[in-house]
Amino acid sequence: MQENAFIDWLRGRFAAADASVLVGSGADDCAHVAVDAPRLAFSIDSFAEGSHFAPDTPPRLIAAKAMGASLSDLAASGCRPRWALASACFRRGLGGDWAREFADGLAEAAERHGVAIVGGDTASSAAGVFVTVCVAGEPMPGGPVTRAGARPGDALVVTGRLGGSLLGRHLRPEPRFAEMRAILGFQPQRPGGAVVNAAMDISDGLALDLSRLAAESGVGAAIEAGLVPISADAGRMAEKSGRSPLAHALSDGEDFELLLAVDADAWREFGSQAGAEPGLAEFTRVGWITGGRELSISDAAGEKRPLQLEGYVHEW
Amino acid sequence: MQENAFIDWLRGRFAAADASVLVGSGADDCAHVAVDAPRLAFSIDSFAEGSHFAPDTPPRLIAAKAMGASLSDLAASGCRPRWALASACFRRGLGGDWAREFADGLAEAAERHGVAIVGGDTASSAAGVFVTVCVAGEPMPGGPVTRAGARPGDALVVTGRLGGSLLGRHLRPEPRFAEMRAILGFQPQRPGGAVVNAAMDISDGLALDLSRLAAESGVGAAIEAGLVPISADAGRMAEKSGRSPLAHALSDGEDFELLLAVDADAWREFGSQAGAEPGLAEFTRVGWITGGRELSISDAAGEKRPLQLEGYVHEW
Repeated sequence: MQENAFIDWLRGRFAAADASVLVGSGADDCAHVAVDAPRLAFSIDSFAEGSHFAPDTPPRLIAAKAMGASLSDLAASGCRPRWALASACFRRGLGGDWAREFADGLAEAAERHGVAIVGGDTASSAAGVFVTVCVAGEPMPGGPVTRAGARPGDALVVTGRLGGSLLGRHLRPEPRFAEMRAILGFQPQRPGGAVVNAAMDISDGLALDLSRLAAESGVGAAIEAGLVPISADAGRMAEKSGRSPLAHALSDGEDFELLLAVDADAWREFGSQAGAEPGLAEFTRVGWITGGRELSISDAAGEKRPLQLEGYVHEW
Repeated sequence: MQENAFIDWLRGRFAAADASVLVGSGADDCAHVAVDAPRLAFSIDSFAEGSHFAPDTPPRLIAAKAMGASLSDLAASGCRPRWALASACFRRGLGGDWAREFADGLAEAAERHGVAIVGGDTASSAAGVFVTVCVAGEPMPGGPVTRAGARPGDALVVTGRLGGSLLGRHLRPEPRFAEMRAILGFQPQRPGGAVVNAAMDISDGLALDLSRLAAESGVGAAIEAGLVPISADAGRMAEKSGRSPLAHALSDGEDFELLLAVDADAWREFGSQAGAEPGLAEFTRVGWITGGRELSISDAAGEKRPLQLEGYVHEW
């Protein structure tokens, strides 16, 4: 398929209903948007054939993963999505249907999460499919939240169930906007107290990402192994890998769940009603933020050992 | 090289001196910036090994091309650069020196053009090197400018000299911020009249990009062949290709020069002093914007023929 014809088609497909879009997809070298927030959050994520998806992954799923995983960063930062730009390098010979299905997947994911695709770039390559999504958002009420700010005594909380996403969930990331909105909007009795002191999304495994949040906050953390919510997929992975379901839950990448340091008093109140809101992923306390810099995990007998920092790390 | 060590190193290398950067590179899932403009412009561009650069292109030049070409879109939109995000997928085995030199190239280009690199993503791939840069800017005085707005009678103007960039210039794009600032800042006698009615950068060849500007503005254009500023590189390419230097100037991609529709009265005044400002690329009128939708080129004898829409078009 020819780039020009594709861009003309995209222009109709990505036509923005959002009044903030002054110059949108395909119309110009740049997209232009009207901004009324004093602070914006940006994130960029790339997805490469062979690393993030298989050569035969359906284009709609590649698109859903790219958009969902990128938006997950905004959700974890306590921001609502506003605009997205997407770039795709198509392997030569893929053809027009592939490209249009990919674009349909992007558009569907964008519509579902209320983000306007305002621009993009297409190119061709002999080497493989390569996708990049850049998203921009603005703080939701109670946000933004960063990785820094966790305090000793905070409850260490995750959403959803962890591990084994490679069995399929990694292609369908669900950015946790509704969950972040729920916990940020939860007002503890004490006025002025922040509810979520630090947050990030779990993209490279709970252990590795926790080490990043702890380092950024200058704190330690103690996980209780028995509390970690283990997905059924982690169990299925364990049957073949010879590792434990817990090990998968701690170190498998691409869960795209929230990792939160929640004020302990707020958690006591929020935690008891966290399951009450229908449709939200469950919130689970998996441990506490501690003083010092140690990261530990303790088993049912209370036996404590250092947390192994395993997870997915790119290398080149 | 390991992703984590690289990100730690990058964080120091990309440390932003810009007060608008609230949360910068490497510190978080998202970059956070303070915004004081009511309108922002975004552009995203991708660069693939084998399509945009050769496998043995030095990493510093790949970085310079990616940042320069992306910023060129902002310049053509009459916007000054503020923030950039960069994503790189490194071929496995490239090693740490390659990645650091690439990042140095990005940082140098960013510093030179006054843009803060606020975020990024790194990954690895078996397939090849892929780079994406997303830039955000805000209108400069007299801006922004889009592709739409050219009016019959406008002078059709380009900066620099065209064609043959493949001989080397394509790796060193020079975004024309200073030139755009100069012409947007030029005030014609008649108050209230816009100076630049439409603009874009020439990335896929003068003929093809002119067709896009004309389509977006709903106008035609008449190029005078004898006026087209032909680069020495186009002459050198012609010696081997068997095509004319003019053909290269009209259809070679990646010139990254400005294509402008300038108010005719303003052009009469600006044109005579366009060469006066030292260090700026030359401005050359190559024809006129016309009514109707025809795109034509006329030779020295006044013989007019339809403009051939050749240029670089990706296909997959």
